[in-house]
Amino acid sequence: MTTPDAALDASLDAAPLDAADPLASFRDRFVQGGDTVSYLDGNSLGRPLRRTVERLPPFVQQEWGERLIRSWDETWMGLPFELGDAIGAATLGAAPGQTVVGDSTTVLLYKLMRAALTARPGRSRVVVDDDNFPTDRFLMEGIARELGLELDIIEVDRSIGVTPDQLSAVVSDETALVVLSHVAYRSGYLADMPGLTRLAHDAGALILWDVCHSAGAVPMQVDEWGVDIAVGCSYKYLNGGPGAPAFAYVRRGLQAELEQPIQGWMGAADVFAMADVYVPAEGMRRFLSGTPPVLAMQPITDMVDLVAEAGIEAIRTKSVALTEYALRLTDALLAPLGVTVSTPRDPELRGSHVTVSHARFREVTAALWRRGIIPDFRSPDGLRIGLSPLSTSFAEVRLGVDAIREELERETAV
Amino acid sequence: MTTPDAALDASLDAAPLDAADPLASFRDRFVQGGDTVSYLDGNSLGRPLRRTVERLPPFVQQEWGERLIRSWDETWMGLPFELGDAIGAATLGAAPGQTVVGDSTTVLLYKLMRAALTARPGRSRVVVDDDNFPTDRFLMEGIARELGLELDIIEVDRSIGVTPDQLSAVVSDETALVVLSHVAYRSGYLADMPGLTRLAHDAGALILWDVCHSAGAVPMQVDEWGVDIAVGCSYKYLNGGPGAPAFAYVRRGLQAELEQPIQGWMGAADVFAMADVYVPAEGMRRFLSGTPPVLAMQPITDMVDLVAEAGIEAIRTKSVALTEYALRLTDALLAPLGVTVSTPRDPELRGSHVTVSHARFREVTAALWRRGIIPDFRSPDGLRIGLSPLSTSFAEVRLGVDAIREELERETAV
Repeated sequence: MTTPDAALDASLDAAPLDAADPLASFRDRFVQGGDTVSYLDGNSLGRPLRRTVERLPPFVQQEWGERLIRSWDETWMGLPFELGDAIGAATLGAAPGQTVVGDSTTVLLYKLMRAALTARPGRSRVVVDDDNFPTDRFLMEGIARELGLELDIIEVDRSIGVTPDQLSAVVSDETALVVLSHVAYRSGYLADMPGLTRLAHDAGALILWDVCHSAGAVPMQVDEWGVDIAVGCSYKYLNGGPGAPAFAYVRRGLQAELEQPIQGWMGAADVFAMADVYVPAEGMRRFLSGTPPVLAMQPITDMVDLVAEAGIEAIRTKSVALTEYALRLTDALLAPLGVTVSTPRDPELRGSHVTVSHARFREVTAALWRRGIIPDFRSPDGLRIGLSPLSTSFAEVRLGVDAIREELERETAV
Repeated sequence: MTTPDAALDASLDAAPLDAADPLASFRDRFVQGGDTVSYLDGNSLGRPLRRTVERLPPFVQQEWGERLIRSWDETWMGLPFELGDAIGAATLGAAPGQTVVGDSTTVLLYKLMRAALTARPGRSRVVVDDDNFPTDRFLMEGIARELGLELDIIEVDRSIGVTPDQLSAVVSDETALVVLSHVAYRSGYLADMPGLTRLAHDAGALILWDVCHSAGAVPMQVDEWGVDIAVGCSYKYLNGGPGAPAFAYVRRGLQAELEQPIQGWMGAADVFAMADVYVPAEGMRRFLSGTPPVLAMQPITDMVDLVAEAGIEAIRTKSVALTEYALRLTDALLAPLGVTVSTPRDPELRGSHVTVSHARFREVTAALWRRGIIPDFRSPDGLRIGLSPLSTSFAEVRLGVDAIREELERETAV
């Protein structure tokens, strides 16, 4: 491997950054081990907490195995709401009674898109953008087709994201619902949540924010900003484990107006009445459908506690430092090999991951994975460096970018 | 406590029944402990397996914590289908490629009800019965209202269940879909799955079976019987834990005709293509929506293995013996106190639970729970004795019925 001058630049040294990091010790709370040298995919699947390894056996043995069905009365029935409130407080800026955990992100998005449309019955248009995560677009397309609504699709410049001007140009008094992502899954672009929410409201529309790529890493003030609905994932920066259940926030004043279509017993006003006709519950319970996924919620609890302990503002400060460091390393070590940056350079416009692009990144990622350097690849040429602030060190980023450079040199030398 | 003559009757002695039970040793595979003396609610929440307690820490440590995102490629992407096939083989009589695990029972029912209706577009009626589990009725009512379909509601005599005559009287060439439960959650009535399926088909309708209260306890031959769709729960006789994900079977020849409405990335033909337009996958993948709940699937795997090891026919034999024993005990010990039987006496018409009724059973159940005797109460007066064949002994049933008698004597003496 060649060692460019840049690699000797003291400003690229990870050690002082880790030494000065007030959150550095949180890294010890996570499971380490195996062959992983540098994990740069915490925005796809967060690392487990050591606490989670310890928590599960007594949960199975005692809460499930010994208390058995009694645990539903004792703790489990309230869990979707307690954990929801904890997520709301730790990451969303949401007062209690507005956040609930249950179902997958996809299912919660579906229910709340459908529900939002029931609250704007006279309006015939919905707004999405062409760079949102496929699920969000697929769902909205399916629902629009089914209900005979028109889709307004904003074409996004991926280096910028959806701008206020773009949204203003498309929302109108015919718009029922706007669906946007807070942080773009590809570019890491951080949208102006308060500003865009205001624009949607000025037109009388509701807005649904997908916060999968921001919850746990980027602070929000959904109450203060008047957000209507937010849906997020818990297996990224909330470290809930593969396929962990998602969460949904619905503004208190809006809850009674929304009726979701998947009418199950857990969403009914009196769950155990076994009534003849479905009457939706008051409050957030109406957005539940089936039996809450209690086992799958256990790991999320651990991470939400940790986010609260560290503080979301401190997490954001480290997140920005990590992404800035990744960009500095990219400029110094990867740009000379033809790598370009696909993420905004202004930290105000950036979430907690950095995407870099090169035509050979598919092969590079495969080679990296074999040696325990684990970023994510997004077709056709994007390599995502996901920086989970509480579990990622600056040294890990440096190791990762050095390895990307090595593998890219190998690939391009062929 | 009085000791009636009946209690001395040797035919009511549990010991010889346990001694002769070829599946008795399986009970040791389950978590025991705590204050539970007799667990009679395995049809609400199955006991955990000891194997599950042991499996979770290495799963979190290694599969999740060390392999990290690589586990999606290595094992997790296939898990919904592998576990589905295992459930199909162990409990449904389904060949591979027709069963998948994901979402809650409610969400799977919703998706497959909606999907079934896409395959019968010209037909305007759906059939349900008034004794089905609330979720099934609530969902079908909501969907019918939304799509402008007429509901035909069969009024069930709860001591018999839906009869062929009743179904014949209501299905017609206008019927799109019939939704029934295999085992009634209240009475334990076991419906004639092959016969009723044939009647629905004779009218050109599709049939969806809710198998929540039979999967893992009552054998089925869904392939042989031509069942179209079956949806079941995994936290009852499949011991998957509180809120464990459900499973769905869709007959192979029908899969391509069904389009479900919750269009997420995991149901798309090319999951990672991040395509512009949703194209449903071939086969069972099209019925997935969000990221599969991998952590929550782990315990199910253990129990499905155990069901396969014991054999569903042997499980059924023990199940029948357990319910017969519960009925004999009820006749001898509880009937003199005014308790009636709300479950069919013909074992061919009975699932794996027995429901007995008395006006004071709400109070009796509360008292029983406090002393570690745990049946289930179903309003207004039903006490369910759920008999999970691999984890319940005859002695446990005897202990339970003796305690019901004691508490009922106490209650009625007041």
